[in-house]
Amino acid sequence: MNSELVLSLDAMGGDHAPGIVVDGAAVFLKGRRRKVRLLFHGDEAQLGPLIEAHPELAGISEIRHSDSQVDMSAKPSEAVRRSRGSSMWNAVQAVRDGDAQVAVSAGNTGALMAISKVCLRMKAGVHRPAIAASWPVPKGFSTVLDVGANVECTPAQLVEFAIMGEAFHRAVHRQERPTVGLLNVGQEELKGNDVVRDADALIRAAGLDMNYRGYVEGDDISLGTTDVVVTDGFTGNVALKTAEGTARLVAGWMREALTSSIIAKIAASLLQLGALDQLRARMDPNNVNGGVFLGLNGVVVKSHGGTNAAGFATALRIALEMADSAFLNEIEKNLGLLEAAQERLATEQAPEGQQESA
Amino acid sequence: MNSELVLSLDAMGGDHAPGIVVDGAAVFLKGRRRKVRLLFHGDEAQLGPLIEAHPELAGISEIRHSDSQVDMSAKPSEAVRRSRGSSMWNAVQAVRDGDAQVAVSAGNTGALMAISKVCLRMKAGVHRPAIAASWPVPKGFSTVLDVGANVECTPAQLVEFAIMGEAFHRAVHRQERPTVGLLNVGQEELKGNDVVRDADALIRAAGLDMNYRGYVEGDDISLGTTDVVVTDGFTGNVALKTAEGTARLVAGWMREALTSSIIAKIAASLLQLGALDQLRARMDPNNVNGGVFLGLNGVVVKSHGGTNAAGFATALRIALEMADSAFLNEIEKNLGLLEAAQERLATEQAPEGQQESA
Repeated sequence: MNSELVLSLDAMGGDHAPGIVVDGAAVFLKGRRRKVRLLFHGDEAQLGPLIEAHPELAGISEIRHSDSQVDMSAKPSEAVRRSRGSSMWNAVQAVRDGDAQVAVSAGNTGALMAISKVCLRMKAGVHRPAIAASWPVPKGFSTVLDVGANVECTPAQLVEFAIMGEAFHRAVHRQERPTVGLLNVGQEELKGNDVVRDADALIRAAGLDMNYRGYVEGDDISLGTTDVVVTDGFTGNVALKTAEGTARLVAGWMREALTSSIIAKIAASLLQLGALDQLRARMDPNNVNGGVFLGLNGVVVKSHGGTNAAGFATALRIALEMADSAFLNEIEKNLGLLEAAQERLATEQAPEGQQESA
Repeated sequence: MNSELVLSLDAMGGDHAPGIVVDGAAVFLKGRRRKVRLLFHGDEAQLGPLIEAHPELAGISEIRHSDSQVDMSAKPSEAVRRSRGSSMWNAVQAVRDGDAQVAVSAGNTGALMAISKVCLRMKAGVHRPAIAASWPVPKGFSTVLDVGANVECTPAQLVEFAIMGEAFHRAVHRQERPTVGLLNVGQEELKGNDVVRDADALIRAAGLDMNYRGYVEGDDISLGTTDVVVTDGFTGNVALKTAEGTARLVAGWMREALTSSIIAKIAASLLQLGALDQLRARMDPNNVNGGVFLGLNGVVVKSHGGTNAAGFATALRIALEMADSAFLNEIEKNLGLLEAAQERLATEQAPEGQQESA
């Protein structure tokens, strides 16, 4: 696919919008050869001068004016009712209308998800959307999903997440046959709850075209034991935030250690020249910014609300990788296998002809 | 309470038993003024010489011979049926018999929990045991529970965990009025699942004598936003292991950063003298070793199976703090308030006189 790709940006979403959206787009474009166009949805009066300040945005940018924007504290249900015509709504609607391949917003997560569901609707064969996060591991990134869209999941929904996560990892992290694990706890007696156990059985029964490796535990995520880690949105969100908190705690200790004495300060100033910056870059959340909404008829990328231009550029890179991939078509085969397996299992469980869904 | 305390040790449990158990006891005793006695349960022929090698153990140690030990891979149900008379069983039974105030084992977690439940039984007013972990935060430690005993919990069980965790934190981490938070996810639309929401309502309705602060999120754990964090065993176990994995990942990056160039190596050798060691000590899992089983008629401490003598000594210190506290009596008041609230709510919900438990 070498046709021109169009990214649709909610230019008013996020704590530091529209500045970081426009600056982020400029960072994103630097040295990029892939032909893209950008739709900026937002206040024309503000956006015009910002975009003009970046010559690299000239010619490939289009401003689509919107009068309103979604408040960071708006409830999702409110957002759906009241935000028609807002910059966020229009950014997603442009994907629905075929004007763009992917939408990106640093705005209110719940509102973005609600608007995305209304505008784009679920892809056939997927029951609930998931948010996929890229997670730093020793060699690159792993993919963790769901990190917050669904607090409760059925076994079949977890299998759908596995299917989408696998295709996402291939699209964004460029691995031909990613390995997939199901997040569980390790105590022998308590080998998971029923939902996780049933999801494991269903993946195996469905004969998916997938490199499935069974259960993984919490420490396996950061170790990168499998490329994709599947869990419900409650556990995934807690895990993601726990990792962020832990990284911050350790970084704080490191800072203390490097300023605890004269010798430590000398050492730190030596390190400042290179190694520490490299370490900081690895721990910088801006380098992993961009949760992707999967399962809709179209791709939406959620940037962290407090991100800076570099972080927004990362979200745009992820958006481009998704737009440039065959993600939406790729998941169809496995979704078909899953559906067939569920029908088969339902028939087996109801031999007297009763139709029950698994 | 200044009477002599007795700790009952499963001397054969763990990857490096009985060596680290005896060595750990010696480390634990160093410089300790509180009068304690130790019961070592295990193979007398092995334990005799090991204990004799430590003069500080003389006079306060008693070996109680057992012929067998619980296998690290034994299933909990098997362990209960077949391990009567094993070192683990006898260690717990000594608490039941009043010979000791607390049992400590580095053996098989599931087996230890199953044996503890059979030997000690649940404390009146508590429905399920929980495993409490001490979690490093910027200022000391917080307490997280449950980290693995129950994969599914009712709202009332989460409230019981809150009551036990609060008293545990006071006993072990010496804080008079610990703050308590309920682990949740933050998306506006998805403010938790039903169980968490109902637990929050129940805590408030019960009017507990507790410094309850409402919901916290994953990153709040390592930030130490509240002293106690309450969650179900599935989420807690994933969070704990995710934090361990993340700390290891960051430590690995740090190692790489400190050996990436000549200058980095010079800086690292300067740091070696102090700051790095201090940082390493903070990240050393041996300094947070010891999951405590709460909710039984007696206290059982589970040391990590792969721990060394220093780690086992940490578990013994936690055991001593618990044994030396009024933990079991302290939780009774709040458990009573919880029970009363549940009865009240059940009556309100069943106005026509039907009795249903909430």
